[in-house]
Amino acid sequence: MKNDRKLVVIALGGNAIKQADEIGTAYEQFRNVAITCKQLVKMNELGYKLILTHGNGPQAGNLLIQQEEAKQIVPPQPLDVCGAMTQGQIGYMFQNQLQNFFRKKGKNIPITTVITQVLVSKDDPDFDDPTKPVGPFYTKDQAMELNKTKGYIVKQVRPNGEKQWRRVVPSPDPIGIIEANCIKALVKARAIIIASGGGGIPVVEKSDGQLVGIEAVIDKDKAGQKLAEVVDADIFLILTNIENAYLNYSMPNQKKLGEISISQAEKYLREGHFLSGSMGPKMLACIRFIKAGGERAIITSLDRAIDTLQGNAGTHIVP
Amino acid sequence: MKNDRKLVVIALGGNAIKQADEIGTAYEQFRNVAITCKQLVKMNELGYKLILTHGNGPQAGNLLIQQEEAKQIVPPQPLDVCGAMTQGQIGYMFQNQLQNFFRKKGKNIPITTVITQVLVSKDDPDFDDPTKPVGPFYTKDQAMELNKTKGYIVKQVRPNGEKQWRRVVPSPDPIGIIEANCIKALVKARAIIIASGGGGIPVVEKSDGQLVGIEAVIDKDKAGQKLAEVVDADIFLILTNIENAYLNYSMPNQKKLGEISISQAEKYLREGHFLSGSMGPKMLACIRFIKAGGERAIITSLDRAIDTLQGNAGTHIVP
Repeated sequence: MKNDRKLVVIALGGNAIKQADEIGTAYEQFRNVAITCKQLVKMNELGYKLILTHGNGPQAGNLLIQQEEAKQIVPPQPLDVCGAMTQGQIGYMFQNQLQNFFRKKGKNIPITTVITQVLVSKDDPDFDDPTKPVGPFYTKDQAMELNKTKGYIVKQVRPNGEKQWRRVVPSPDPIGIIEANCIKALVKARAIIIASGGGGIPVVEKSDGQLVGIEAVIDKDKAGQKLAEVVDADIFLILTNIENAYLNYSMPNQKKLGEISISQAEKYLREGHFLSGSMGPKMLACIRFIKAGGERAIITSLDRAIDTLQGNAGTHIVP
Repeated sequence: MKNDRKLVVIALGGNAIKQADEIGTAYEQFRNVAITCKQLVKMNELGYKLILTHGNGPQAGNLLIQQEEAKQIVPPQPLDVCGAMTQGQIGYMFQNQLQNFFRKKGKNIPITTVITQVLVSKDDPDFDDPTKPVGPFYTKDQAMELNKTKGYIVKQVRPNGEKQWRRVVPSPDPIGIIEANCIKALVKARAIIIASGGGGIPVVEKSDGQLVGIEAVIDKDKAGQKLAEVVDADIFLILTNIENAYLNYSMPNQKKLGEISISQAEKYLREGHFLSGSMGPKMLACIRFIKAGGERAIITSLDRAIDTLQGNAGTHIVP
């Protein structure tokens, strides 16, 4: 039995926290987060219940560089622990800024970040051929050394420059949200929750049932979809740097997509209209959400989010 | 109206996560956390509802060193953000290990970490004379440079060695827990919650009501007490590296303290029986808890925690 207020899970892109031309000071990040939160507060005022999830690429990247630079003095933490750290970091910024917007309006709303582990299958095919680059760039020699000493899988990721190599890790599919019951309890208490940041802390279930963190990065839109599914959200909203998805994007015959059915979305995805590192996983996440029983999945930009929820913008995927 | 299961807020010392002779690898920390969690699971089985809080000294120290080493490449984050990062880091380790102990027993218990801001007064006297050392040691020249360029307050903290100086920050008193309503909602949902790690993320309320993170460190036992107070806990349990508090500690006439009244505790504290950087703030936190209406405050060691809850060990402060 659904409550009358619709529950929206919002997946925020990296630009909601750190712009590409910024170095990532706390000042910059709080400012960007504030811009995002202003829109989130409007959604709350429109009557939506909110759960946020977000990327952590730039923050995890910075942390990995810091760990690298200090590795002679301080032991670097593995990727699962780094992911947990960025969940705390970014979550704090969102809950602080959201809280402040509501305080301005004299509203006392429970808001918090839930540190979230996301289950992946230890048999996920992505473990066989990791493709997600993480951390600093290395010279070939450094990369080979890391492969030898730490077992890192390394790949050449750019054709020139002094440092062309990076570590790559698997990006397995999310199959469960370990803290789902906590998040549901908070939704019930009418809280705004920040969860599954950076795609969640990836854990596998060993044959004895124990959950073990792994060195991997889950796509944040896919993890956001799984989160939206397990909390029984009505709407899954992906906010990115573009207002709509397109057919034949950046070609003369490009066509903006408004509301499309799940079968149209599947057809367009199959036909290769959406870039694999960009709109592709977003569209796939939307398709999965509708297949799992969701009412509406939306892709749009932050500044059109309100218009979009009112049906006047964005790309909508519906059953 | 209280539930029949007693609610215990447990404040864990740094040794619950990183031993003094360890460098702080993830492996070491997960192992220590597992040892602690084994006792916490027993408490759960005795029928107690649990909220954990913990220190973050070694983890924040390591993170500050990493930030320092990479500062030419990556902008260091301020202390409030670093605190949030260690809440995510340590919280993840606890929720993962606790979850695993319960999974072994076939139990599905909601467990999560709540990123927690702790309110302090902007007029706290500790802002006038900061005393809490944080981050790396510096030479006098480095310290003076940091004072000039970044406004750090620096103090000579040891009499010899190459680097004798450290940054010091205020350690203000906690006066509120911003996420109290979320924590209460999770208690109601019978979750085990990790909250206010590292004493919480210190925030002040500006005259316009906005909450702003500050460069300070709140004592984790004092913050734990405030947490225990606002969630209306029955018992506040401080786990440290010693089984009891003592009168005339380490003197020939030292006397182990069992159950004492709040007036006895206040008298002993006034008389200077408890070290200011160690047992002093713990005893003060216990006194505050009882004054705020708590039923029982306890100081003991991890390995005696169960005996202590059954009344057979530890120092108990009662009304």
